[in-house]
Amino acid sequence: MSVAAVEVRASEGGTAPAPTTPPVSFATSPERYRHWRLAVEGAVATLTLDIDETGGIVPGYELKMNSYDLGVDIELYDATQRLRFEHPGVRAVVVTSAKDKNFCAGANIRMLAQSSHPWKVNFCKFTNETRNGIEDATENSGQTWIAAVNGTAAGGGYELALACEKILLIDDNSSAVSLPEVPLLGVLPGTGGLTRVTDKRRVRKDRADVFATRAEGIRGKQAVEWKLVDEAVPMRVWDETVARRARQAAEESTRAVGAAGARGIALNPLEPVESIDGIRFRYVSARYDRAAGLVDITVRGPETDAPASLEDVHEQGDGFWTLAVTRELDDLILRLRANELELGTWLIRTEGDLDRVLGYEALLDQHRGDWLVNEIGLYLKRVLKRLDVTSRSLVALIEPGSCFGGALLELALACDRQYMLDGTLEDGEVPATLVLTAANFAGLPMGNGLARLESRFYGDQDHLDWLEREIGRPLSAAEAVELGLVTDAPDDIDWEDEIRIMLEERASLSPDALTGMEANHRFVGPETMESRIFSRLTAWQNWIFVRPNASGPEGALRKYGTGTRADFDRKRV
Amino acid sequence: MSVAAVEVRASEGGTAPAPTTPPVSFATSPERYRHWRLAVEGAVATLTLDIDETGGIVPGYELKMNSYDLGVDIELYDATQRLRFEHPGVRAVVVTSAKDKNFCAGANIRMLAQSSHPWKVNFCKFTNETRNGIEDATENSGQTWIAAVNGTAAGGGYELALACEKILLIDDNSSAVSLPEVPLLGVLPGTGGLTRVTDKRRVRKDRADVFATRAEGIRGKQAVEWKLVDEAVPMRVWDETVARRARQAAEESTRAVGAAGARGIALNPLEPVESIDGIRFRYVSARYDRAAGLVDITVRGPETDAPASLEDVHEQGDGFWTLAVTRELDDLILRLRANELELGTWLIRTEGDLDRVLGYEALLDQHRGDWLVNEIGLYLKRVLKRLDVTSRSLVALIEPGSCFGGALLELALACDRQYMLDGTLEDGEVPATLVLTAANFAGLPMGNGLARLESRFYGDQDHLDWLEREIGRPLSAAEAVELGLVTDAPDDIDWEDEIRIMLEERASLSPDALTGMEANHRFVGPETMESRIFSRLTAWQNWIFVRPNASGPEGALRKYGTGTRADFDRKRV
Repeated sequence: MSVAAVEVRASEGGTAPAPTTPPVSFATSPERYRHWRLAVEGAVATLTLDIDETGGIVPGYELKMNSYDLGVDIELYDATQRLRFEHPGVRAVVVTSAKDKNFCAGANIRMLAQSSHPWKVNFCKFTNETRNGIEDATENSGQTWIAAVNGTAAGGGYELALACEKILLIDDNSSAVSLPEVPLLGVLPGTGGLTRVTDKRRVRKDRADVFATRAEGIRGKQAVEWKLVDEAVPMRVWDETVARRARQAAEESTRAVGAAGARGIALNPLEPVESIDGIRFRYVSARYDRAAGLVDITVRGPETDAPASLEDVHEQGDGFWTLAVTRELDDLILRLRANELELGTWLIRTEGDLDRVLGYEALLDQHRGDWLVNEIGLYLKRVLKRLDVTSRSLVALIEPGSCFGGALLELALACDRQYMLDGTLEDGEVPATLVLTAANFAGLPMGNGLARLESRFYGDQDHLDWLEREIGRPLSAAEAVELGLVTDAPDDIDWEDEIRIMLEERASLSPDALTGMEANHRFVGPETMESRIFSRLTAWQNWIFVRPNASGPEGALRKYGTGTRADFDRKRV
Repeated sequence: MSVAAVEVRASEGGTAPAPTTPPVSFATSPERYRHWRLAVEGAVATLTLDIDETGGIVPGYELKMNSYDLGVDIELYDATQRLRFEHPGVRAVVVTSAKDKNFCAGANIRMLAQSSHPWKVNFCKFTNETRNGIEDATENSGQTWIAAVNGTAAGGGYELALACEKILLIDDNSSAVSLPEVPLLGVLPGTGGLTRVTDKRRVRKDRADVFATRAEGIRGKQAVEWKLVDEAVPMRVWDETVARRARQAAEESTRAVGAAGARGIALNPLEPVESIDGIRFRYVSARYDRAAGLVDITVRGPETDAPASLEDVHEQGDGFWTLAVTRELDDLILRLRANELELGTWLIRTEGDLDRVLGYEALLDQHRGDWLVNEIGLYLKRVLKRLDVTSRSLVALIEPGSCFGGALLELALACDRQYMLDGTLEDGEVPATLVLTAANFAGLPMGNGLARLESRFYGDQDHLDWLEREIGRPLSAAEAVELGLVTDAPDDIDWEDEIRIMLEERASLSPDALTGMEANHRFVGPETMESRIFSRLTAWQNWIFVRPNASGPEGALRKYGTGTRADFDRKRV
């Protein structure tokens, strides 16, 4: 969200239908960035926001005042990934702005006003995930992010700073931090702002209330006193203070580099083959069945045995199966979410040699201390978390020839349901088995901090202990049923009908009700700051987005910048 | 929610505007119940649901199949309160139905279809609070609730059972438990169902998914195996099994009775004086300023010193100040929420002798083991929780003559902001002070399990320790500022202007954005099952309620019972 003064005219931005958008691609790289500059100097990287006003990802608005849209965020996400894989020597990341007196005005309002509801929601989700990733880098990769707020940070601009470990604000009598969404736009600071202000920065709720209703925000020492920023830094010592704080953070970093050294690996373009009916990466493919409203996803295991040594893993780089398959899954999830809104059910299958899959996992397990191995595991964790917050029905199909073991079994556990064929459909097939590994118990938690098995058997430690004793043993369909790992295990006679009927039933249900139901069922028990952003904050924001007080013709989002005030229905709900 | 087959005709229930409703009153008593029968036999009470089809609280629908509306829930709430105060000997409460093969069909669909969005949301909130109160009685009052599900329990009917400690389901080959909202109505089971199934009953998420998408629900042994109910009881032993389980629960109850014995106290009618401009109870009054969109609430302290003994407390019964003021506040909150939607800001003041207020608290503190004292404290806790989830801006004004000490200080801490006058406005006044007591640290937690001070100073144990050392000392405005207990403390010159401007600003903001913002700021940090019901579940449900797929002319809620299917926008959001 933002206060970018983009001169929304009601006659244009307000009421015009959203322009038809081409499919969104998430592929980019630093040399193609239009809005960010990434510079690495030793242990410190600097990411400078320098928005190209004319570079909106869809037509219809100008990105004034360093305000952003999905395209800007795609570049930011790309930078976070490259910092982790291509720049293992980086231990501190400074985010700053190239614009005078203006750090970032947040999400572009004209873009929001013209966007469809699904676009807004999906944009916020991706933005949230990137910011969670920034915190993950700080916490788990020893890449500490520092916001060098050298001008006003409004709305999403301040929310970006909130995702950083430290916030430095220039003390120039004009630069402020603010969350002006409520007073100016009638919506929430929806990408973590409200939650991080109270839960992370620990700002008192009454001050948070004052802050989030004061359009002009808070400057200087008061911002420090209220804990909104860590330091207010006078202009004359700005550059040296930022540099010193970055150096300090880099020195305190615990980033593991490991035996193989800190030479990064290149994240080369994925280059999938796309058609109207699907997309095919090297290991991951998806076939779209538009009539049935579903996507049939297959994740393939490695083609060869795991390499012999850690050096080979580094050598293979982004070709190393675990990393490659993670990148492909990530890209697929993002594309499907953004571009295929009517494909409401995702079927997830695997195909490959289960022992080989386990071999890769064992190799990674052996070398946990290595920076690359660490990064691969963290990346897989983040991609699995994307599945947890994906508003699509997820169904795992476990069939002969599949390789649901360890981390790949998490794909099935992330699903709303798991169906396992008890037997075979063709002569010569071997019935499917599942294999639990240590990865199913720790290292790949959901956003609520629980392993997916802990969520599945919430509060039942006896059952979890039983499962842990089964680690490594191939489990038949009957055993998987007994252990509660699958929803049902039809035999060869029932399989096809049962799956078909289940999918038809799913497709007949209200997409909205499914979204709400799945979001509730997937997250059992405790909540964390991260999961609260996707529950309390996002669900309320989505409600507010569809209410006429925000998005109606007289709503605040449409009226902003027109010179006329929004006309609110004053009923409190 | 429900599957009550109420023959909604799109031409009527679906598209007709909601009938104009008279103000809702929450006053009732067992002899006036139209839908419930309350019978007490020794330690066991039985609440029998026997809905009067023609007894809807507003015109326009018939309450077929034991389906309910707000009026039915008002009676249920009254019963829960009377059980706790008037029947201290009761240690187990059986909820059952008088209708053949039909426990309860949940919320009446025709009612939902004709209701405005605020009505639906407020109805669900009240229903949720009553169910949380049932769990509070089980957990903290030794009144264990048992659902004797002697017929099908659908939607809200099953959600009512879920609020009970044990669920017995009659095993008659037809009676099922179900949550058919998603498949039949395109909305969520919004009064705790999704959360209690996973978090309380610990049903596996994939089974929860199957269950919540299967309109016909689950019967008998499978319901037990899936943990949806505790026992499936054959018809021939139904009555004796229910009686035995109730007896067992009563025997295991830890209900404190204490020295004064188990004679209940009567909850007499409150009989406030109402006018178009306000409402006046004995200790609580509210003045409505419709032009400004605010309510000015004053809570008065006791008129006399605390009684000398516990016996006197019992003797005074519902006239005892703490109980009386709690009941009045409860009633006021419920009335304002239901009837005064456009009064978006509540000002909360107190008036009275602070020492007397503390004297009452000290007396209660002395006699914690007594059942009545226990109940008064629990009731106050529940009423304060209502404030936390009230979708109105809450502002405390702390002025000379006020008595914000201990539990009354919680009223201020529940507010979004606290303003304290530093000085006096009139000659002869004494400046206001605040007093912290042990009650501010424990015993009156929010739904998230934290004391309001713990929420306010989340994660700052040093500060909480500091506050604890100040217990009992009257704190001036300057000290209250230093201790972070108030948002601001203007002096006599600024007071009026600052408050006026603040209220005008508040009134200019989007009511929806305020609702979302306040819900986020008030609940910091951890979530519990209870708070998750109001966050993940309610916020999503509210979103779904306003989406065309539910409430539009072609939406599922409108189409139910018409014989034609809903026409969904299939885009996933």
